Parts: sequence; structure tokens; C-alpha cells
Amino acid sequence: MKFCSACGAQEIELRIPEGDTLPRCVCARCGTIHYQNPKVVVGSLPQHESRVLLCKRAIEPRHGLWTLPAGFLENGETLEQGATRETLEEADARVELGALYTVISLPQINQVYMMFRARLLDLDFGPGPESLEVRLFDESDVPWETIAFRTIARTLRNYFLDRRLGVHPLHVSAIERRAPLPPDLLAAG
Amino acid sequence: MKFCSACGAQEIELRIPEGDTLPRCVCARCGTIHYQNPKVVVGSLPQHESRVLLCKRAIEPRHGLWTLPAGFLENGETLEQGATRETLEEADARVELGALYTVISLPQINQVYMMFRARLLDLDFGPGPESLEVRLFDESDVPWETIAFRTIARTLRNYFLDRRLGVHPLHVSAIERRAPLPPDLLAAG
Repeated sequence: MKFCSACGAQEIELRIPEGDTLPRCVCARCGTIHYQNPKVVVGSLPQHESRVLLCKRAIEPRHGLWTLPAGFLENGETLEQGATRETLEEADARVELGALYTVISLPQINQVYMMFRARLLDLDFGPGPESLEVRLFDESDVPWETIAFRTIARTLRNYFLDRRLGVHPLHVSAIERRAPLPPDLLAAG
Repeated sequence: MKFCSACGAQEIELRIPEGDTLPRCVCARCGTIHYQNPKVVVGSLPQHESRVLLCKRAIEPRHGLWTLPAGFLENGETLEQGATRETLEEADARVELGALYTVISLPQINQVYMMFRARLLDLDFGPGPESLEVRLFDESDVPWETIAFRTIARTLRNYFLDRRLGVHPLHVSAIERRAPLPPDLLAAG
């Protein structure tokens, strides 16, 4: 943020406002405090019989890697509406949402992932504009080496473990440090 | 938003950017898209033996009404860190957090509430700067008529019902319409 969105002044200071405890972007001219808060990423884990649906990303970050359908929760929608919308947009897939399944805080990038289990309602899915390919995978075929995000790998691992146990409790966790990128991903930028 | 925070132009348009599906605030001069997304409100339900801790609000909205300690999740923190911090700030209370207990979408005000169960670690609590009073309440004493928010009333009701049943599952829900304000609150502005 360079300019104040309330008055247009190029006088944004980072300081702790009176009565607050954290540094904020404050306009030195009009005094507006510009709060910045984490975003919610909401999505689904669509299943059909023994298989799960994954999308190959057509956009950065992690172009060409596999993910579950997920994206930023929008103003005006519930978590369930957001998860359903993202699944439709990214995989052209209609689902019946099940329980909230993983909640993962990512404090270093100011995000909270919230993934729901889901059941595919038909098999007429296909890539939306943000996907190159959409496919169903058996557990043995999941491309673990090319999963786009640690949140997604964690959600999938939880799912296959829980499926063996026959229970799918909520998993609340955090990823507080980024794992170092493997050399091939580093090279890919 | 009146001015672009990237270039300072007073040329913000509400339109659907190419490749997007929703109207956004877009700067007509520099093209920056200013996304706005829901915020997470995180808090706790602190218990001590059979009683729960409530805070009387010293700030608007709902000054003078009772609430559980909760507030906006901050950048750089996990949900658990946020819930613990809010409990310390509003009630000067140290807690051991338990399970995530209620998740409530509030699409009309672009918020998601996430409340954790918690156990008070000591009884040296007291009002922080945003509270007038902090007290422990037995179920029979809870001031249901002067609870500040529907999310908090719902969380408390779930808790007392679940306690009778001896189980405290996660409750995921939404409040999609605002209840009409009672006349005394309307009069109070």
C-alpha cells in the first residue's frame, strides 16, 4: 500500500495506533487505519467410489502441479457456498458437500485453509479456466511428488489414512514454516 | 475505497475483470484489482468447573452487552494463537485451548466466526481495555437477553446442550439473515 485509499495521500506510515498492539498502515494525513487480515481458502475433496478428484493447475503459483479444487472465500458467501463454487469453477464438478475436514493455519502467508469432504454428483467434470486437466485418482495413483501445496498433500494423506480407520474426524493444524523447495521446483522458479 | 492504494488515482470502478466472475474495485488508471475478502473472527469459550467466562463489551458495536472473548484474526498468527491472544486481551485470562467448537459463516457482514473450547488456567482474570467487566456464569445465570452477538449466543447454547449429552462435536453453520433488532437496541442506535 503506497497511497491512502480514503484520502489519496502518499503518506502511509507503519505504526502502532493508540489503543492497539500491532503496527498498522496508518495515513498520516487523514488518520485512516488500514487493517490487513488473513484470507480464507475454501475447497473440497470430491470423491467418487474409491477415487478422489484432482485438478492440474493452469495458473501460477505451481502451474502444472495437482491440487484439490479450492480458492479464496468471497464476500457474501458462506464457507459451503465458497467450497461448492470453487469446485464448479475449477473442475466443472457438481458435489454434495460433507463435513468440514481440514482446517490449516498458514501464518507466514496469512491464509487459513478450510477443506470439506464432498461426493461427486455426476462424472461430467472437466477443466475450468484455471485447470489444465481434471482426473479421478485411486490412492495408489495419487501424484504425491507433484502436489501443488502442502495443505493439499496433508488433506489427502489424512483422508486416505482415515479411510482405512473408517472415521473422518476434523483435523485442525498449522504449517508454521515453509519447507525448502526441492531443487527442481527452485529451478522452475 | 475512493483512491487506488497502488497509484493514488481517484478512478476506482466497480467492474468484473477479464477472466473473473465477480465485480471488483479496479483502478481505471493503473489496472490494479483491489480484492476484498471475508475476515475471520477467532475466540474462545473459557470454562472453569461448571461456569463459563463472559466479557461485557466496553466498545461498539454492542457496548454494554456480554460476549465471549473474540476478535479479528491477525496476519502472521494461527487460529489457536489468535484465540489465545484475544482471550488474554479482552479478559486478561490465560487458557488452555481445546477443540475447535463452532464455525459460523456470516455472509452478510463478510465474517467467519471460529470459536475454540478452552479451560481457564487460573482465576486472575479481569477486564482488558475493550471490556467493562469479566465474570464467570453458571448456565442458569447466563444473561441471554443481553448477549452481544447471535454467533456467541449460538455457541453458548450449543455448549450447554452438548454438555448435557456429554459430547462436544464441531458445529458448522451459517447465519444468513440478520434478525430484526429489538426496539430498545434500535433506539440505542
